[in-house]
Amino acid sequence: MKIFEQTVEEYRAEINRRLSGLLTKQQPESMYDAGRYVLEAGGKRVRPLLTLFACEAVGGNREDALPAALAVEILHNFTLVHDDIMDASDSRRGRATVHKKWNDNVAILVGDALVAVAYHALLESKNNRQEEITRLFTDGLLEVCEGQTFDMEFEQNDDVTVDKYLLMIEKKTGALLKMSAAIGGVIGNADDAQLEALRQFGTYLGLAFQIQDDLLDVEADAAKIGKPMHNDIKTGKRTYLLLYAYEQAKENQKDVLKKVFDRSVRSKKDIKKVLQVYESTKAAEAARDAVAHYTAKAEECLAKLTELDGGQNLQFFARMLLGRDY
Amino acid sequence: MKIFEQTVEEYRAEINRRLSGLLTKQQPESMYDAGRYVLEAGGKRVRPLLTLFACEAVGGNREDALPAALAVEILHNFTLVHDDIMDASDSRRGRATVHKKWNDNVAILVGDALVAVAYHALLESKNNRQEEITRLFTDGLLEVCEGQTFDMEFEQNDDVTVDKYLLMIEKKTGALLKMSAAIGGVIGNADDAQLEALRQFGTYLGLAFQIQDDLLDVEADAAKIGKPMHNDIKTGKRTYLLLYAYEQAKENQKDVLKKVFDRSVRSKKDIKKVLQVYESTKAAEAARDAVAHYTAKAEECLAKLTELDGGQNLQFFARMLLGRDY
Repeated sequence: MKIFEQTVEEYRAEINRRLSGLLTKQQPESMYDAGRYVLEAGGKRVRPLLTLFACEAVGGNREDALPAALAVEILHNFTLVHDDIMDASDSRRGRATVHKKWNDNVAILVGDALVAVAYHALLESKNNRQEEITRLFTDGLLEVCEGQTFDMEFEQNDDVTVDKYLLMIEKKTGALLKMSAAIGGVIGNADDAQLEALRQFGTYLGLAFQIQDDLLDVEADAAKIGKPMHNDIKTGKRTYLLLYAYEQAKENQKDVLKKVFDRSVRSKKDIKKVLQVYESTKAAEAARDAVAHYTAKAEECLAKLTELDGGQNLQFFARMLLGRDY
Repeated sequence: MKIFEQTVEEYRAEINRRLSGLLTKQQPESMYDAGRYVLEAGGKRVRPLLTLFACEAVGGNREDALPAALAVEILHNFTLVHDDIMDASDSRRGRATVHKKWNDNVAILVGDALVAVAYHALLESKNNRQEEITRLFTDGLLEVCEGQTFDMEFEQNDDVTVDKYLLMIEKKTGALLKMSAAIGGVIGNADDAQLEALRQFGTYLGLAFQIQDDLLDVEADAAKIGKPMHNDIKTGKRTYLLLYAYEQAKENQKDVLKKVFDRSVRSKKDIKKVLQVYESTKAAEAARDAVAHYTAKAEECLAKLTELDGGQNLQFFARMLLGRDY
């Protein structure tokens, strides 16, 4: 695991170096200043790492996958910039968001431009399956938009179920991980079976990752995840725990949840009430089970990959991601 | 010209029919409802027509260019949806804009999704120069974002010159016309010289078209262009006429323009004052000369195209577009 972590550090440094050197234009100023601000913000670089490891997992050369790895990270950053406008989020990774530091218009335009920058990066891939790659990338772009739209619709909808929630996060979080893994696979010249295994691996990893993110809101200490605890409850976010609890709750508990989440702001007392319903419906346990379920599914997919060395790195990667101890 | 107009009607009907059948998904509802609303709004379909005629102009088959023609039109519609948010425009083509009928978030997401829908359409092109097409398309996407950013920056900037304005409209209007012509050319298997002629043709056409649009604000009757006269002055838009007038104006006239355009709203009296400065600086004549100049440049490019039949249709097309009598 030690060697693997060094590999991750090395790959991530390479990704960061290339992202930093990508936007060299000066004009229009607000666009390129904001674009550099976004791409140089750091972050875990989960998606490009997945592309690189997926390429290696099917026997490909990591170098060949680097342009596409940058492309998936840039596309991810486009989603963050636009999501932050929609969620009215003021900070990300400890810094002001683009729409806060500049304004909504700049954020809309920088997001749009990043889509183009991402496609440009993707076109730098050297391989003979470019059309397939462009298609996977475009599928991912459309799916992530659908996922965010579902997420927005859910905020105005009392009728959200765990099943609908799973469809939403499969698109919002799963789609880009699926795409990142699949594109890495294609560049490594994966056959159909390998490609399908990689796609599923990415999807399950995304589901596990997102539900774990929901779970951390009631479990982790603030320092570890970089955001205050119970923030999802405070901000009224629909999470796996909330929807599971609502489905399992007795009528009087449902009323409590409804009342609390219908408010525009939630107090400490409200949070306590919600946590009591989570406790009595065993929502955290259910979320933990779901994470374990999707993690196991993801690992099953890996077993199908033939190249053992690479497959092993993907397994390390999944564990690192879900352990979040880095 | 009669036969040509029938051809245009036929091509446009085909484009509209295909656009109407494109989005069949139902969920997420707000995204696909709004997406259909946008694509079925009609409009002149200038860009896809240009793609089809450019393809034919180099001896290609129009059928081969249809998917790409849809793609350029969808991309254009993406820009309209996002621009309408930024400009806070409430209506377009006589109907409520997406952000007005739904909300800003839906408009951001539908715009984003339309980019993906456009790339999907582009990928349906059957030809052996797909990578080149994707690159041209992506160049166009980035340029149009840059153009809109310049336009936004200009609104907060007293330092805009005619030259800067020309760069802005070259990107904001010219880039998509250049791209539409070039992609049609590539699909028709244009050689380098033909392709360069088509690119330049599209660019010059875009410049002529935009400056004429500015000119129409002080000349046309409202019925003809579908918007009230002097609307650009009323809304404080930076146009060719304004920037030319400002450059040519005497100090006291500059003060008048500055004062009037610094206001948040402009009265009928203000409009009259601006028109007086336009009159005395001969701004309309200058705009008319610029339209003629870029139109002539565009026609020079056409002379370079070898296939006479197709080249002729492009010439008709340019005249129709700039005559706007259809």
